[in-house]
Amino acid sequence: MLDFIREFGIILLVCKSLGILSKRFGAPQVVGEIIGGLLLGPCFLNLMKSEDTISLFAEIGVLLMMFSTGLGTDLKQLVKTGKTAFMMALVGVLVPLLGGTLLYSCCFGFHAPGSSGFYSALFIGTIMTATSVSITVATLQELGKINTTLGTTIVSAAIIDDVIGMIVLTCVIGAASGDNGSLGLIFTKTTMFFVFAFVLGYLINRIMKWLDKKYPHTQRIPIFSLALCFLMAYIAEEYFGIADITGAYIMGVALASVDDAPYIEKKIDTSAYMIFAPIFFANIGLQTNLKGMTKDMILFSLFFVIVALFCKVIGCGLVAKLAGFNTSDSLKAGVGMMTRGEVALIVSQKGLAIHLIDSSYFSAVILLIILSSIATPLLLKWMYKDNSKKVSKL
Amino acid sequence: MLDFIREFGIILLVCKSLGILSKRFGAPQVVGEIIGGLLLGPCFLNLMKSEDTISLFAEIGVLLMMFSTGLGTDLKQLVKTGKTAFMMALVGVLVPLLGGTLLYSCCFGFHAPGSSGFYSALFIGTIMTATSVSITVATLQELGKINTTLGTTIVSAAIIDDVIGMIVLTCVIGAASGDNGSLGLIFTKTTMFFVFAFVLGYLINRIMKWLDKKYPHTQRIPIFSLALCFLMAYIAEEYFGIADITGAYIMGVALASVDDAPYIEKKIDTSAYMIFAPIFFANIGLQTNLKGMTKDMILFSLFFVIVALFCKVIGCGLVAKLAGFNTSDSLKAGVGMMTRGEVALIVSQKGLAIHLIDSSYFSAVILLIILSSIATPLLLKWMYKDNSKKVSKL
Repeated sequence: MLDFIREFGIILLVCKSLGILSKRFGAPQVVGEIIGGLLLGPCFLNLMKSEDTISLFAEIGVLLMMFSTGLGTDLKQLVKTGKTAFMMALVGVLVPLLGGTLLYSCCFGFHAPGSSGFYSALFIGTIMTATSVSITVATLQELGKINTTLGTTIVSAAIIDDVIGMIVLTCVIGAASGDNGSLGLIFTKTTMFFVFAFVLGYLINRIMKWLDKKYPHTQRIPIFSLALCFLMAYIAEEYFGIADITGAYIMGVALASVDDAPYIEKKIDTSAYMIFAPIFFANIGLQTNLKGMTKDMILFSLFFVIVALFCKVIGCGLVAKLAGFNTSDSLKAGVGMMTRGEVALIVSQKGLAIHLIDSSYFSAVILLIILSSIATPLLLKWMYKDNSKKVSKL
Repeated sequence: MLDFIREFGIILLVCKSLGILSKRFGAPQVVGEIIGGLLLGPCFLNLMKSEDTISLFAEIGVLLMMFSTGLGTDLKQLVKTGKTAFMMALVGVLVPLLGGTLLYSCCFGFHAPGSSGFYSALFIGTIMTATSVSITVATLQELGKINTTLGTTIVSAAIIDDVIGMIVLTCVIGAASGDNGSLGLIFTKTTMFFVFAFVLGYLINRIMKWLDKKYPHTQRIPIFSLALCFLMAYIAEEYFGIADITGAYIMGVALASVDDAPYIEKKIDTSAYMIFAPIFFANIGLQTNLKGMTKDMILFSLFFVIVALFCKVIGCGLVAKLAGFNTSDSLKAGVGMMTRGEVALIVSQKGLAIHLIDSSYFSAVILLIILSSIATPLLLKWMYKDNSKKVSKL
């Protein structure tokens, strides 16, 4: 137990320092924090590794960030961006799915549909589907762009993306194992979840509005809100198979119209940045272990990363462009959607469990996570800066 | 991992609600939060139990509370109260030590000094020695009395009490196992710790003052402070055998004169009350399991609790009275010092490991912790209320 206290102290000190340094060099803070984790982890200093407890703190970190994002959501904008976000998510899943399947086939030969090699190829594509929105959210928050139309579109798309990605995963696993019954179940569960979330969200919105009117600016308001965020996250994942961060985000949206929403957001943000969020970013670096990689695997990993990133940028960017965003904003949407996170690892784990892929592909996934986590904030910041330069020239 | 998210949600919801209810009935919030833990734990609903991860959150909760207390310390007052606090700690350790030894001897027969029965008796006394200051600190904070002369005296006494209690423990274990070399070691280590803490505290004070002047009111100030708190807590316990909460408190004192100390305190307090502190109080209740207690054991436990509480009140109250506090304040000092916490459990564990006591005494210790944790805030609030009534009558 004492060891965690030490590790948390070191993580806060090192990652915050590197975050500040990163900012000084013009990069977002999260890049420094992830590099801090890389530095402390098995790749370099080997001072600590990602353990269950650290992962729990990291998970709470994402929940807090997603909850805070939900709290700051402009509901009208969310509805307005809904259609674009859905299309962006759909195309953003299909293009990488295709890209990944083709990549595997090009590297290891094309296999007949229905053969185990074909499903392995399809699975590599499946791993590429799920966007991880937390890095993008943190970057947009840092840049003050989270509540723009573009910001809301990206966040909504990433939420929907998770659901579509999960459906794809279920289809692929179902097809590979010859079981197609689970697909109907997942559709039913997803629909039920959104109905449930809508009803519960409405009720909780009413109750919290009443409570907040009666006791404005009291500790109980943010504490109860956080409790509801945790419970919704749990219910989403445990009973409906929806990612816990989606539950946290939806609870945030449900509370966004409470008078004290900015007050709740402030308390949640403080809890996040004081301890949980730095551990989340550090944990990305801590999970990375690149030892024991062969030359072939490094080459495949590089292609894997390139295909995964470009497919998202092209797929999502194209939809954004078609939806009427300008080229610069469309590119930002694509880049914002290209980060991958723990979902990619979870999907890989599933593929490993049913022998569709072997563990050597993990390093490719980790490389994708780490590179996209570092590249996205850098690119986003650079693109926004570039943009404001152009504007100021006018 | 998901289960912890659910448990934290439930803890926050139930314990905060009972805390509010408790306040409505005129009792401090912490009483309701502890009762919430009792309700959720193995004693009643059995929805969850105290596990390593919950204990870690609880531990961070105490560290944050002690750090915050240190940050709010008036250094001049600390020096002023030092002598009284030392005497209060010393007498407050010796009286319960004597009381516990006599109680065991009265219940199970007097044994010749040097016999194993004699050491068992002495050990029951040793368990009674260590005050746990966190409940008292939380109560005094809630009542707005933490920065009074009495508040500072109690906190300092409880810190010194830990050190003296530890010396007693070492002596008893050393004598029982015929090894007296460790006593010298503990004295050396304790002295070394305070020298180390003084030097490091001075350096950190300088660095943080400089940093705070350069970047006032930035996130980095509270984040670095928290990191230092964790690292000091770790170093204290790991390298010097001093309780981690003492380390956290001392780091708070070291930073108390930084301009932004109130700003740091506010951020730490938010982090504490949003999640860690409620888990700490709930965990006291969660650890309680009174099943399987025999009639004899219940009777012994009751006497054990009565002796433990009265010995502290008498010992500490007497010193306070002799030091010039009025009767009402002396009584408050005694009551403030009578809470026991996890240290009593740790000491019992030590005794169990060297076969001086058996595990059936654990229930007595837990009963002491739970009753003192509930009684102290109730009594303190009542005594302060009673006091202000008298004053307002004048």
